[in-house]
Amino acid sequence: MRMYDIIEKKRDGKELTSEEIEFFINGYTADEIPDYQVSALLMAIFYQDMTAKERADLTKAMVESGDQIDLSAIDGIKVDKHSTGGVGDTTTLVLAPLVASLDVPVAKMSGKGLGHTGGTIDKLESVPGFHVEITNDEFVRLVNENKVAVIGQSGNLTPADKKLYSLRDVTATVNSIPLIASSIMSKKIAAGADAIVLDVKTGEGAFMKKLEDSKELAKAMVSIGNQVGRNTVAIISDMNQPLGFAIGNALEIKEAIDTLQGKGPEDLTELCLTLGSQMVVLAGMAEDVDEAREKLSENLENGKALEQFKVFLKAQGGDSTVVDEPNRLPEATYKVELPATSSGTVEAIVANEIGTAAMLLGAGRATKESEIDLAVGIVLNKKIGDQVSEGESLLTIHANNEELEQIKKKLYDSIVISTNSVKAPTLIYDTITE
Amino acid sequence: MRMYDIIEKKRDGKELTSEEIEFFINGYTADEIPDYQVSALLMAIFYQDMTAKERADLTKAMVESGDQIDLSAIDGIKVDKHSTGGVGDTTTLVLAPLVASLDVPVAKMSGKGLGHTGGTIDKLESVPGFHVEITNDEFVRLVNENKVAVIGQSGNLTPADKKLYSLRDVTATVNSIPLIASSIMSKKIAAGADAIVLDVKTGEGAFMKKLEDSKELAKAMVSIGNQVGRNTVAIISDMNQPLGFAIGNALEIKEAIDTLQGKGPEDLTELCLTLGSQMVVLAGMAEDVDEAREKLSENLENGKALEQFKVFLKAQGGDSTVVDEPNRLPEATYKVELPATSSGTVEAIVANEIGTAAMLLGAGRATKESEIDLAVGIVLNKKIGDQVSEGESLLTIHANNEELEQIKKKLYDSIVISTNSVKAPTLIYDTITE
Repeated sequence: MRMYDIIEKKRDGKELTSEEIEFFINGYTADEIPDYQVSALLMAIFYQDMTAKERADLTKAMVESGDQIDLSAIDGIKVDKHSTGGVGDTTTLVLAPLVASLDVPVAKMSGKGLGHTGGTIDKLESVPGFHVEITNDEFVRLVNENKVAVIGQSGNLTPADKKLYSLRDVTATVNSIPLIASSIMSKKIAAGADAIVLDVKTGEGAFMKKLEDSKELAKAMVSIGNQVGRNTVAIISDMNQPLGFAIGNALEIKEAIDTLQGKGPEDLTELCLTLGSQMVVLAGMAEDVDEAREKLSENLENGKALEQFKVFLKAQGGDSTVVDEPNRLPEATYKVELPATSSGTVEAIVANEIGTAAMLLGAGRATKESEIDLAVGIVLNKKIGDQVSEGESLLTIHANNEELEQIKKKLYDSIVISTNSVKAPTLIYDTITE
Repeated sequence: MRMYDIIEKKRDGKELTSEEIEFFINGYTADEIPDYQVSALLMAIFYQDMTAKERADLTKAMVESGDQIDLSAIDGIKVDKHSTGGVGDTTTLVLAPLVASLDVPVAKMSGKGLGHTGGTIDKLESVPGFHVEITNDEFVRLVNENKVAVIGQSGNLTPADKKLYSLRDVTATVNSIPLIASSIMSKKIAAGADAIVLDVKTGEGAFMKKLEDSKELAKAMVSIGNQVGRNTVAIISDMNQPLGFAIGNALEIKEAIDTLQGKGPEDLTELCLTLGSQMVVLAGMAEDVDEAREKLSENLENGKALEQFKVFLKAQGGDSTVVDEPNRLPEATYKVELPATSSGTVEAIVANEIGTAAMLLGAGRATKESEIDLAVGIVLNKKIGDQVSEGESLLTIHANNEELEQIKKKLYDSIVISTNSVKAPTLIYDTITE
C-alpha cells in the first residue's frame, strides 16, 4: 500500500477502505508518512469530504493510535458530555453533580484549558483544596461510591489526532466537517465513554456560525458514535451570546452553585436540563427525556443536586463549605460596573469579544505557560432582549487591576443597545439522534 | 504575509496576487516555507485552478527563482521548440538543422533524458566524436556562425520548479493544468528563448490522453508565453502511436538523416514542416506559414538542410561522414523481425508499451545512473491503418542480447491487428495561437 495512491484516490473522490485509512493513520503516527503527503490528503478531504463509513474508520484508527481508558471497573453506563466551545459555558460544572444525583456515573477526564477562561479543572481548583491528582484506582472507587469524580488527563490518548490537528492548524484544513467530527469523537471514545451527549454550539460565538453547519457537524458526530457502538445524541444550542451570566473561573463555580439550587440563569438551567435529560436516558436511568427532566428538576429543588456537589468536592479534598458560603471562593479586589450609555433593548453581546475581555483580565490562558487568575472575570447583568436604561449596569467587571480603560472600551464595543424591539434568541435549536 | 493565508485564499477559490505568488515561490526556494504547507496549496490549486494572471505570475516567479540564460549575444530571434513527451519523437534532431538552414538561430540547451530513449544529447552522442561540452562563448560563436549549436544544461535553472515538481510527484498533484503549464514554460523562458513553439501531444501515448485536455494545456502555455512577452504558438499533434518508425538513439539519428533529405516517414516529415513553419515565422524569416513551409520543403529537397546537419555535427566534433554513410553509426548485433500472426489492418500500436520495450532493450534510462546502449531500439515497419499479411514483419528489433522472448511478447501485446477497416489517425489536430 502506498500513501500516494491513497491521496490520489481521495483526490478523485473515491471512498477509502478501512485498511487504507488505518495505513495512513498508523504510518503518520509512527512518523513513517511525511507531513507533506498528509497535508495533501487533508486538503483533498477538505474538498471531497468523507463518507459515513470513512469517518467512522478514521475515528477508530485515531482511537487505536494511542492509549484507551478502560472504565469497565465502574458500574453502570458511563455517559460523557462534550461541548464544542463557546463562552461562559458552565454546563459541565452543573451537569456532573446533577446527573450523578440520579446515580448516573460521571467519570470525567479533563485537561487544563486554553481560551477565554480555564478548563473544568481550573474552575474546580478555585475551590480551596480541590485537586485532581488522584490515582486511577481512587478515581474508579470515587465514581463507584459517589457517582462522580474528575481526574486530570493522563496517558497518550489519540496521538494521531494531536499530530493531525497541529498539521491542519497550519495548512488551512481545520474547517472540515469529517476532520472536526472524527477529532472530537476520537477523544471522547478513547477516554472510555459508553455513550456521549454532544452540545453543539451555533451562532456568532461558536466555531460553527451557521445553524446548517452546526447541524451537519452534529449529524456527523452522532453517525460516528452510533457506528462505533457508542450511543450518541447531539443538542444544537445557541452561542450568539455568552451562556449564563458569569465568565471566569470562581465566578462560574458560584454560578454553578446557584444553578444547582434552582436559582441559576434561565438559559444555563434550561440547557443543563436538556443535556442532562439525554444523559440520564442514555445511562438507562429514565425511560424518556420527559421523565428524566422531571427527576432532574426535582433534584435541583430538593437540594440533592447541591448535596451531590458538596460530596464530590469534599471527596477530592475541596472545601465544600464554599457551596453554602460562596464568599470563601477567590474574590477579585475591584468590582466595576459598566453603565449603559443609552436606553433601549440589548441587541447583541458579541460572545467572543466578551470572552477575550475576560482573558485580558487574566481569567484564561493565551499560551500553555500563562498563569490564570481564578478570581477575575465578567458577570453579565443584561442579556439579549433585556430592557436597559441609560446608566444601568450592563455587566460587572471583576478585576485585580485598576487599569480597565481598554477592557471597558472592548466591552462597550461588543454590546449593542438598540431602540428596536429585540427578542431573546432561541436557546435549543434541535436534537440530533441519527 | 503568511503562507497560511495564501493557502486559505486559494482554498476558497480567490485569486492570489503577484506578491503572494512571489512570497510563496521565494520562500519555498529558500527552504523557509515547509513542504507540508506547499503540498496543501498545490492540492488547493488542483481543485481551484489558477487564473491566467496567476499562471503567468507563477511562471515568472519560478523563472526568477534561479539563473536565467542570456542569449542576447546571439543575432536574431531565438525560437525554442518543446514537445510534451511522446514516443519516438525525432522532431528536435530534424528541426534544429532544418530551420537553421533558413538562418533561424537554434541555440539549444538540453539535458540527458530519462525515459524510453535517451534525450537529444544522448541521441547526438551516437555520432562518433560529437560532444556538447563547449563553453558559453563557443556556444554563442557557433550559433552566430552556423545558426545551430547544442550545449549541455548548466547553471541553476528554475530551482523552484525542481522542488515543486519533486513535491507534486509524491502528493498526487502532478496532473494540474496550471502547474504543468507553468513548469514547462518557466524552463523554456529561463533558458532564454525569445519565442516558443510547443508541440503538445495528444492520445494514448501522451501525458494528456484527451484532445480537450491537450488543448487546454496548449492554451494555458500559449497564454503564459504571450503574457510574459514571448511569442508562443502550440501545435496539437497525435501520439496514439509512436511518431515516425524509429525508437532508439542511433536509430533516430538515422531516421533524422532520412527525413532531412526528404525520405523520412510521412508523419515525422509533416510534423517537422508544421512545427518548423511556425518557428520560421516567429523568427521573422517568412511572412506566413505557407511561405515558411515552402522554403523548408525546398531545403529538404535541395540538400541544404542535410548540409546544415553536417556542419552542425562537425562543429561540435562529430564525424559528419555518418550523414552519407549511416552504417558508421553504432549498430546492434541482432536484428530480429516480428512477424504478424494474422492478416488484417493495424488497429493499434500502443506507444508507451513500444517505448517500454525499447527501454528494456537498453535504449533508455530507468534511473539517472543507468547506462544507455546507443545502438539498440525498435524500427516499426507498419503503422496504424497499414495492411499486413500473416508472416509479414511488423517491426524490427535491434538488440545486443539474444534473449528477446519477453520483449517480443510485450510487443505482440501492444500491436492490435483487426479485420475491420481502420484509418490512419489524424496527425495535426489544431494550432493554438492565443
